[in-house]
Amino acid sequence: MDRLEKQIDFLLEVDKLKNVLRRSSVTDGSRRENSAEHSWHLCMFALTLAEYAPENTDVSHVIKMLLVHDLVEVYAGDTYLYDEEGNKTKAARENAAADKLYAILPDTQGDEMKKFWYEFEKCDTNESLFANALDRLQPILLNYTNEGSIWRENHIKKQEVIDHAFRLTKLSHPKLREFALNIIEKASQNGWLE
Amino acid sequence: MDRLEKQIDFLLEVDKLKNVLRRSSVTDGSRRENSAEHSWHLCMFALTLAEYAPENTDVSHVIKMLLVHDLVEVYAGDTYLYDEEGNKTKAARENAAADKLYAILPDTQGDEMKKFWYEFEKCDTNESLFANALDRLQPILLNYTNEGSIWRENHIKKQEVIDHAFRLTKLSHPKLREFALNIIEKASQNGWLE
Repeated sequence: MDRLEKQIDFLLEVDKLKNVLRRSSVTDGSRRENSAEHSWHLCMFALTLAEYAPENTDVSHVIKMLLVHDLVEVYAGDTYLYDEEGNKTKAARENAAADKLYAILPDTQGDEMKKFWYEFEKCDTNESLFANALDRLQPILLNYTNEGSIWRENHIKKQEVIDHAFRLTKLSHPKLREFALNIIEKASQNGWLE
Repeated sequence: MDRLEKQIDFLLEVDKLKNVLRRSSVTDGSRRENSAEHSWHLCMFALTLAEYAPENTDVSHVIKMLLVHDLVEVYAGDTYLYDEEGNKTKAARENAAADKLYAILPDTQGDEMKKFWYEFEKCDTNESLFANALDRLQPILLNYTNEGSIWRENHIKKQEVIDHAFRLTKLSHPKLREFALNIIEKASQNGWLE
């Protein structure tokens, strides 16, 4: 099969990400967010909040990482951050999904694209730390805007949100950190977190 | 108001793009595509099909342009490519929307981000030509995958699709051009275009 045809097949396959639903709702609360529009929204976060990235962060690289960071969900589905059981099998399910998905691309292109995802998951470069920080910040904001409905529904505790927001990524910039903690505190005061 | 707060307000405002519906359906035909996930999909096109861009095209710049290219639709709505009346007022509606939306950002950040949109609309650089080409190619692919349902519903003619696909952007790479013409020809043979 022709190189371009394989690339087009890949682009039609990843279209399925538009039907993978996350727990968070869009800001007006009318429906759950899907992983494709979530990925776009995170890229907008990276573009808009670039000044809070660690020094010498390549924001274009962050954006490319965010574009592909959830692609494996087309086969593995979305795993809720606070789902302990789901998170035990997440890595195995997502690795199998990556092998299947990236094999659609011709020659070495799949391996090259998979590297962005590995880097995001490993989270040990400026770029992946910032990308992960935004991936934690965005749902906190959406949940806050929706009066914590998803937190309340899932009986999430304040300390769990703080742990998950800061464990891996540290939301290292003091302004982002302060902002996130402030939102979580307000949510807690409103009774939206246990 | 604090700089970060304005940036967060902007990011919550652009979330509305997730509720702006386009004419095209997602690949499984279950529902119409929204402009946020469409923007993400186009960025995936840019990342995957970068080799077909004009020589010396900065693909990171293309991606940033594609991220913001539909933002004005949060106030101006989506205008169907083949809607003659809507397209007469499109520029005025979108300019007013851009003034309102980008004013949310602090200092000069709105102007800087608006530049990406201007460049996309002006379509006279390698980057904007490629971005526009992808913006024409993607709905052709989605419509083809859905057996031309949106074309049939709107009585679109084969020549209209060709004109709109190639007028501005030229889909200049011969492989992309050949691929798109081939899809349009097949759609026509299947009776999906008038």
